[in-house]
Amino acid sequence: MKAAIIGGTGYGSIELIRLINKHPYLEVGTVVSNSQAGNKFSDTYPHISEIIEQPLEKFEPNQLADKNDVVFLATPSGVSSRMVPELIDKGIKCIDLSGDFRLRSVEEYETWYKHSPADEGYLKKAVYGLSEIYPEKIKTANLIANPGCYPTATTLGLIPILKTNLGDYDSIIIDAKSGVSGAGRGLSLTNHYAEINENLKAYKLGAHQHIPEIEQVLTDEAGNPITVSFTTHLVPMTRGIMCSIYIKLKEKVTTEDVHQIYDEFYKNKPFVRVRPIGKVPSTKEVWGSNYCDIGLHVDPRTNRLTVISVIDNLVKGAAGQAIQNANIMNGWDEQAGLQDIPMYP
Amino acid sequence: MKAAIIGGTGYGSIELIRLINKHPYLEVGTVVSNSQAGNKFSDTYPHISEIIEQPLEKFEPNQLADKNDVVFLATPSGVSSRMVPELIDKGIKCIDLSGDFRLRSVEEYETWYKHSPADEGYLKKAVYGLSEIYPEKIKTANLIANPGCYPTATTLGLIPILKTNLGDYDSIIIDAKSGVSGAGRGLSLTNHYAEINENLKAYKLGAHQHIPEIEQVLTDEAGNPITVSFTTHLVPMTRGIMCSIYIKLKEKVTTEDVHQIYDEFYKNKPFVRVRPIGKVPSTKEVWGSNYCDIGLHVDPRTNRLTVISVIDNLVKGAAGQAIQNANIMNGWDEQAGLQDIPMYP
Amino acid sequence: MKAAIIGGTGYGSIELIRLINKHPYLEVGTVVSNSQAGNKFSDTYPHISEIIEQPLEKFEPNQLADKNDVVFLATPSGVSSRMVPELIDKGIKCIDLSGDFRLRSVEEYETWYKHSPADEGYLKKAVYGLSEIYPEKIKTANLIANPGCYPTATTLGLIPILKTNLGDYDSIIIDAKSGVSGAGRGLSLTNHYAEINENLKAYKLGAHQHIPEIEQVLTDEAGNPITVSFTTHLVPMTRGIMCSIYIKLKEKVTTEDVHQIYDEFYKNKPFVRVRPIGKVPSTKEVWGSNYCDIGLHVDPRTNRLTVISVIDNLVKGAAGQAIQNANIMNGWDEQAGLQDIPMYP
Amino acid sequence: MKAAIIGGTGYGSIELIRLINKHPYLEVGTVVSNSQAGNKFSDTYPHISEIIEQPLEKFEPNQLADKNDVVFLATPSGVSSRMVPELIDKGIKCIDLSGDFRLRSVEEYETWYKHSPADEGYLKKAVYGLSEIYPEKIKTANLIANPGCYPTATTLGLIPILKTNLGDYDSIIIDAKSGVSGAGRGLSLTNHYAEINENLKAYKLGAHQHIPEIEQVLTDEAGNPITVSFTTHLVPMTRGIMCSIYIKLKEKVTTEDVHQIYDEFYKNKPFVRVRPIGKVPSTKEVWGSNYCDIGLHVDPRTNRLTVISVIDNLVKGAAGQAIQNANIMNGWDEQAGLQDIPMYP
Repeated sequence: MKAAIIGGTGYGSIELIRLINKHPYLEVGTVVSNSQAGNKFSDTYPHISEIIEQPLEKFEPNQLADKNDVVFLATPSGVSSRMVPELIDKGIKCIDLSGDFRLRSVEEYETWYKHSPADEGYLKKAVYGLSEIYPEKIKTANLIANPGCYPTATTLGLIPILKTNLGDYDSIIIDAKSGVSGAGRGLSLTNHYAEINENLKAYKLGAHQHIPEIEQVLTDEAGNPITVSFTTHLVPMTRGIMCSIYIKLKEKVTTEDVHQIYDEFYKNKPFVRVRPIGKVPSTKEVWGSNYCDIGLHVDPRTNRLTVISVIDNLVKGAAGQAIQNANIMNGWDEQAGLQDIPMYP
Repeated sequence: MKAAIIGGTGYGSIELIRLINKHPYLEVGTVVSNSQAGNKFSDTYPHISEIIEQPLEKFEPNQLADKNDVVFLATPSGVSSRMVPELIDKGIKCIDLSGDFRLRSVEEYETWYKHSPADEGYLKKAVYGLSEIYPEKIKTANLIANPGCYPTATTLGLIPILKTNLGDYDSIIIDAKSGVSGAGRGLSLTNHYAEINENLKAYKLGAHQHIPEIEQVLTDEAGNPITVSFTTHLVPMTRGIMCSIYIKLKEKVTTEDVHQIYDEFYKNKPFVRVRPIGKVPSTKEVWGSNYCDIGLHVDPRTNRLTVISVIDNLVKGAAGQAIQNANIMNGWDEQAGLQDIPMYP
Repeated sequence: MKAAIIGGTGYGSIELIRLINKHPYLEVGTVVSNSQAGNKFSDTYPHISEIIEQPLEKFEPNQLADKNDVVFLATPSGVSSRMVPELIDKGIKCIDLSGDFRLRSVEEYETWYKHSPADEGYLKKAVYGLSEIYPEKIKTANLIANPGCYPTATTLGLIPILKTNLGDYDSIIIDAKSGVSGAGRGLSLTNHYAEINENLKAYKLGAHQHIPEIEQVLTDEAGNPITVSFTTHLVPMTRGIMCSIYIKLKEKVTTEDVHQIYDEFYKNKPFVRVRPIGKVPSTKEVWGSNYCDIGLHVDPRTNRLTVISVIDNLVKGAAGQAIQNANIMNGWDEQAGLQDIPMYP
Repeated sequence: MKAAIIGGTGYGSIELIRLINKHPYLEVGTVVSNSQAGNKFSDTYPHISEIIEQPLEKFEPNQLADKNDVVFLATPSGVSSRMVPELIDKGIKCIDLSGDFRLRSVEEYETWYKHSPADEGYLKKAVYGLSEIYPEKIKTANLIANPGCYPTATTLGLIPILKTNLGDYDSIIIDAKSGVSGAGRGLSLTNHYAEINENLKAYKLGAHQHIPEIEQVLTDEAGNPITVSFTTHLVPMTRGIMCSIYIKLKEKVTTEDVHQIYDEFYKNKPFVRVRPIGKVPSTKEVWGSNYCDIGLHVDPRTNRLTVISVIDNLVKGAAGQAIQNANIMNGWDEQAGLQDIPMYP
């Protein structure tokens, strides 16, 4: 099957290329970059020289639908909302890595993204692609709103405890840390090497556009309205997200109890690895892979649960989960093309 | 005045050397390293070649007291508790950078440090050297228990709000992040470059020995018993600590209100810089300096205050605050020798 | 086919595990670590949890030969020289990633490695596994001396020009730079994060044990005795080697001329990518892959050729080339299991 | 004395601010940034908050000359050539950190910089500010062309051996490595964190604009025309330059012989530290300081001298040497304001 990629020369695109190139059932189809059309992708990214040598193309919906079986959109916010309707209407399945189709509420989108959302009719067709939680809906979807990187790490870390009703819904604090690639390849002082190296920054306090996405999923899963405190930090590394999540427990439970809940919840989910009691994951342990690793600790002094949830923001937080969703949509093994061991060291 | 340094060839020692070397009233006196006695310090640290060329010496309390006016101890936990009594009894003032004299409770020390504390009589003589909070006691002290790096950033970030009674004492969560130098120069897989670079680790969940120190200070200042959730993370950088602190507010207050409280509290404290509303500090902005920079944000959605507090762990979190305390003890300008602009970039 | 790995818990071993795990014809067999026997490999490396869960075993040559089809040795210098004879004599093919079988001259080994070499009879059986240059010998070998990381990047960068007789054999200077993983996982101040981060070191000037290996290969290929100046530098990154190679040209030739020579030389070698004129490779462009990328520039002002040759030291400089050699020995596609796109960013 | 700084908000400016702020005889005067005039410098660089709070100003030559005693220009290439004449004519001394006044030859400037040079009359007034080599001329200069970072490390590393006539002038190869801050604060993919971190790049092979500057100085000092091979590399670190320099020796001499030559040459030069035989410097050993540290090794196998020369590119390679020149011009101690121990770790 041919997979088209729309998204110019950003990190989402190049990571999709890497993963599709080693996928057993997918191959790289049309690669769209309006600004670089005619050039080869390897002009921008010499590391794919002699491997992927096709030219970049302009966005032509008809050709795209004719020549490809699925389309991955790794475009900036506000772009795929305009492209997806045309493509969907031609009958081609779309997996959108941007935030354009993730929020059901038009108002929330406007509030947090500061521009117009996608057409509401198409918003309703979109299935939120958190692969471990919504596999049944994903199977039959034509349009996947692929989750954001922070929401993936956060919601996978919180849903099992929320399902138990042991946690105090008003007490959730998420202290999130990300590597620099999450902000993309566009130039900015916040990704200038000399400003970031040997530096740790907090940013967008209480204002990150992933907040409503997180709250939408947690509210759905808890069956109760949930508002979170969410703070993001920029860490001097390229890949990796860690969410350190704090939730007050309503009853006295032990780390063992909580560990059993998570173990049970994720027992058939190959990409979520719940670490043994006493161990917490580090971001490098999932580097380059589709894993979400989770560590758990209940502090008996405060009766608070700490969840440490890590992913590679470009894989499970973007391109990898997109492929996982494509696998589920096509009835393939969920792990197809995603089974490599993380890169370490 | 001559300043002796006990602490072998660790990072605490070398940072003291750097700061004393540019201090207007202090000069480097005896430098003690039992293991390297006879060698020059510049054999271990070539960057001080042709600047500090004296030999390292064995620990000789009599000579030390004769030839020096103040002693800085930058020794591992459990060492200064044995050395300090001898020195204090000879009438020389001591500033201890280790944890040995920080906890008033013998039981707490044993619980968290897993070995015997200092003699209780000497514990009582020690003044906790959080310079901005206890200057009066420091002025007349003979023995300073210099605060730990995490406790410095945390307590300076929390005390102003605790003093107001606006915060919910049971809701405090400290998500702390540190560079690698905090763990010292000893060899371990947790400071092996290939294990730490491009990696973010959480460690010692609910078990860090700085927890009782933080709780002791906060309890004193709040006038109420305080228990905190405290989680530490290792960030791929050499210097810097950031504590992201979360506390629920009991009344509706704004960022402006809180900002005014902090501004007022620290108005005569040159080393604490409260950032303007809307700005949060990053660790590099205090790199190499004695500043503690603080950013504040009240999230109206959750009525929770987030405090971002940053220091250089080797300066305000260790050697710099020790010098600041020496300045206060000697009646000098608190800023003497500590006025340099942080290194940036 | 089952592949045994001897080499404890070093970076060579874990990289072999990663590559064998995705190889179409190989699977991980016995993994030997005398010090950690009985434990699981994932206790040391949590990133392979739930993927490779077998226990580590003691070195038992009989069992090893019975249960496996090929043995990879990723042991420190001086270890495989003792293990290989036993294994070879049992008829199992060995690929040794250490330096023990690389030098034909017993005296050279003693001079540079400062201990006893392997038995000379076995030295003679060893084939030097520089895959692009010696494929015919590798095909029929029972014992491969897998090249060192620096020699791989250097010799691939120099052989085409040496074959032409255009270069002045006495003028070769190799300025080599390596990431930290090349020194392995053992603890040392030279891989302590705070000593290496934001630092660049030169080391072992004129004394690196890879010098005789480089000279042996270059001398063979040039048909003339070659002595090189070789300087190594430690770069603050985990993976990657760059060799900047300088050679005086005896005649006036252009970059175009030289480019054509290299292009021709490597035209059927899928893992060597000669970059277009005007482009030079960076180490990240081969990160995690088996590529050796080469850039060329003739400076008309000095009539000197500069070759920039980059590899991933753990892949083409160690485990990847070992797999490539196993592929050649078994008559498989040389690229089997090694075709992934490099990780970028 | 008041020191004006022209150079907007670049790294040269902010490093000058840092050094002037701790200088015993200089204080920060006018700071010029046409684009940010009216704003405070601390808006751009929060690390100087509460220390330097004056507004940035537009370039007004009359006011500048009236209110200041010396002007430092840290402007991009092509800017100071237009500003300096006005200033010099008003009788104020100028120290230019750009390349505009470094090359005596108008043709060379045009060839390498690709735009028009400064007026030739003013070029003739400029003294090349390599402080250790030209102190007498600097003393009486009105206009200093402050050397480039690479030329400083290279020429200090080579001049002593060139003076002896032991080296083969045609054999000089300089393999230069720099941290990222050398390229300034302007945005570019070559300083994007995710492109540079965990990466090592070679760039501008045989085309770096510092080549003619190096050759001009070396030719002057050798008394013989010198052409060099010069290759630059970008290292994933913020500060630091290392030049690894290779030169063939015409006679058999030992490391000891060469060491003595360098030791003698630099015996009264406090900022050049010649390392003991067997030791080579690393960049972090001069981090934040004005030192140039030099290591020496003669390889008896090739009779080639390797010189390892390191500086902090922003200090000895820019702002620090500018201050050193101001000290010499004013008859102050050459080390005034520059005596701090390097930052380590």
